Amino acid sequence: MSGDPDLARAAPVLEAVRAARPLVHCLTATVSMAIVADGLLAAGARPMMTETAAEAPVVTTMADALVINLGTLSTDAMEGIPPTVAAAVRDGRPWVLDPTAIGIAPVRTPLARQLLGSRPAVVRGNASEVLALTGAGPGGRGPDSSIVGDGTEVAVEHAAREVASRTGGAVSVSGEVDLVLDSQRRAQVARGTAMLSRVTGTGCLLGALTAACAAVQPSAWEAAVAAVAWLDLAGELAASRATGPGSFRMHLLDALDEVGR
Amino acid sequence: MSGDPDLARAAPVLEAVRAARPLVHCLTATVSMAIVADGLLAAGARPMMTETAAEAPVVTTMADALVINLGTLSTDAMEGIPPTVAAAVRDGRPWVLDPTAIGIAPVRTPLARQLLGSRPAVVRGNASEVLALTGAGPGGRGPDSSIVGDGTEVAVEHAAREVASRTGGAVSVSGEVDLVLDSQRRAQVARGTAMLSRVTGTGCLLGALTAACAAVQPSAWEAAVAAVAWLDLAGELAASRATGPGSFRMHLLDALDEVGR
Amino acid sequence: MSGDPDLARAAPVLEAVRAARPLVHCLTATVSMAIVADGLLAAGARPMMTETAAEAPVVTTMADALVINLGTLSTDAMEGIPPTVAAAVRDGRPWVLDPTAIGIAPVRTPLARQLLGSRPAVVRGNASEVLALTGAGPGGRGPDSSIVGDGTEVAVEHAAREVASRTGGAVSVSGEVDLVLDSQRRAQVARGTAMLSRVTGTGCLLGALTAACAAVQPSAWEAAVAAVAWLDLAGELAASRATGPGSFRMHLLDALDEVGR
Repeated sequence: MSGDPDLARAAPVLEAVRAARPLVHCLTATVSMAIVADGLLAAGARPMMTETAAEAPVVTTMADALVINLGTLSTDAMEGIPPTVAAAVRDGRPWVLDPTAIGIAPVRTPLARQLLGSRPAVVRGNASEVLALTGAGPGGRGPDSSIVGDGTEVAVEHAAREVASRTGGAVSVSGEVDLVLDSQRRAQVARGTAMLSRVTGTGCLLGALTAACAAVQPSAWEAAVAAVAWLDLAGELAASRATGPGSFRMHLLDALDEVGR
Repeated sequence: MSGDPDLARAAPVLEAVRAARPLVHCLTATVSMAIVADGLLAAGARPMMTETAAEAPVVTTMADALVINLGTLSTDAMEGIPPTVAAAVRDGRPWVLDPTAIGIAPVRTPLARQLLGSRPAVVRGNASEVLALTGAGPGGRGPDSSIVGDGTEVAVEHAAREVASRTGGAVSVSGEVDLVLDSQRRAQVARGTAMLSRVTGTGCLLGALTAACAAVQPSAWEAAVAAVAWLDLAGELAASRATGPGSFRMHLLDALDEVGR
Repeated sequence: MSGDPDLARAAPVLEAVRAARPLVHCLTATVSMAIVADGLLAAGARPMMTETAAEAPVVTTMADALVINLGTLSTDAMEGIPPTVAAAVRDGRPWVLDPTAIGIAPVRTPLARQLLGSRPAVVRGNASEVLALTGAGPGGRGPDSSIVGDGTEVAVEHAAREVASRTGGAVSVSGEVDLVLDSQRRAQVARGTAMLSRVTGTGCLLGALTAACAAVQPSAWEAAVAAVAWLDLAGELAASRATGPGSFRMHLLDALDEVGR
């Protein structure tokens, strides 16, 4: 893997995460909390998961980055997210928005659009979620949604550019080919494996990895590209060793620790 | 495994799930959310886990089936379950009730009994939970409870018949020998492995698999029998490969993907 | 492993847990619920996870021991913990306090100090959490915190003794060298592996294992020492087999079942 150009580009960010061990505060889907926390630990970062309005805005002041994932959006998270984002913004700390499953969901959809105003360093989602953010699409049908037909590739990139222009940050669109752009740069990453969609929470983990990378890399776009490469390359390694989705999940965590060492 | 009669009976349902990839909305125990979601993905279905009253009744309209598991019954789930079930009933969508750990628990026990009136396609539980549903037993002592003494086999089957007569659907009673019946049919499945009780959430996963099968198989009884066979055969495969409960859990997810292919 | 002195001391407690299969009620961090439940099952105990004020105080009356972990402290847990602890105290049932991530968190820090008055059989935490319990330290920076500088070893032992004198029970301080003491005895356990900090929830699991041991061993100190040895020895076995943090987690669960058999 040592001659891999995607790895070569990401390597300095991976090394910086492993050296700095950033503390990443995650308000994330309940169902994927464990894979997000274990994935961050495997990558060398440190997770923190408190989500209540009573505690999250205080404990987030210790964090190096924040990720907000709307995946299951408990009442605690619904109430805790706005003041926690406000605390991160106040302290100038990078934060990542993962607008999971927005579209018809009546609370998270307007919440995600409103949170764009707090200028996340990176917005990480799939095509339908990015479309829904701009009001251009129907939104996701489940968290692994990728219902995109002819001509939607152009629409998605248009929506991603619109989001980036509103936040001033980067947008990371996950799909068979990942697209990462900001107002000035654009990368497509055609790596990874379909196995990543056979395990719950790998998208959430990508959002959290993106936050870990943003904690050490001031360019949000570079951070987002590195995180995509990290997960995709780990996924490729894991897929080469797995005999099914259960063993893939285990090998993925091993590989996050192994990639680029 | 190709000549296995239990597999032969279940095979058309497994194939239909893998072809249709039904979206299964799960309001389920927090502790087992990940194994339920990963198990559904391994089986070829797609999970969705939102449980708040603010969002669950809306997002459930996109689902192909619903499973209600009372395992840890958060306040969010307590409030979200009744309107979400009502939405599924209104749309004529199949739903499965998993009355986990009912008995002395003061909220879930009356809630489970009340939900029978919304006619779940399948009720899935262990012996003590099915007894508690009819008020005939003391209820479970923990989620893996199987405190059944002499003569209770008859009492359990009687209780299962009573539940089936009230819902018009099927009842799936998990134990060393699984019993699946409706008003007209009855099957006993003496498969699986004791290892299934060494991993948390395998009963919850069975309820969710039952919902996935009910999404593609109009006969609730056939769906329930197929789900039991699916998990039991995957469990047998996994037990033959595992060196303990940790590796069993991993192999179980691999095997859910492998059985019948 | 048969000649291992740490195992020899712990063996009677391990055997008693496996024979009695104690029911352990866990109000624990959402992120680590699954590893706590799977770890208890692997050890031979049985987990129960309900945390609402509406149900937890009732269902805890069926349990053999209780563990309170403040890890993510949902609103449900915040409201459910005080009456559940009161029920355990009323029934004379052993309970374990795991004051995860106390320090600056504004709800859990005073809650943990107040709960000391309910005399937990064992307090299980890392150095900074034990310091924060007595008001002597700044508290943890994340759940894996171990920010202890020169001279803190003495301060930590002093704090642990103060906690023990207030509860009348044992204190189990996790670190590179684990320290377990009560008013009369003191043990240091220099076992385990750094891999235990690469997987989320292993500290929470130690708290739950401690409760399982306290259910069968009337000496809280003996129970706490046995739990530390159980996890540390399982960790050593797992580390010798793992290729990274993902496989370590799996082997750890296998090894909890295997140690001392």
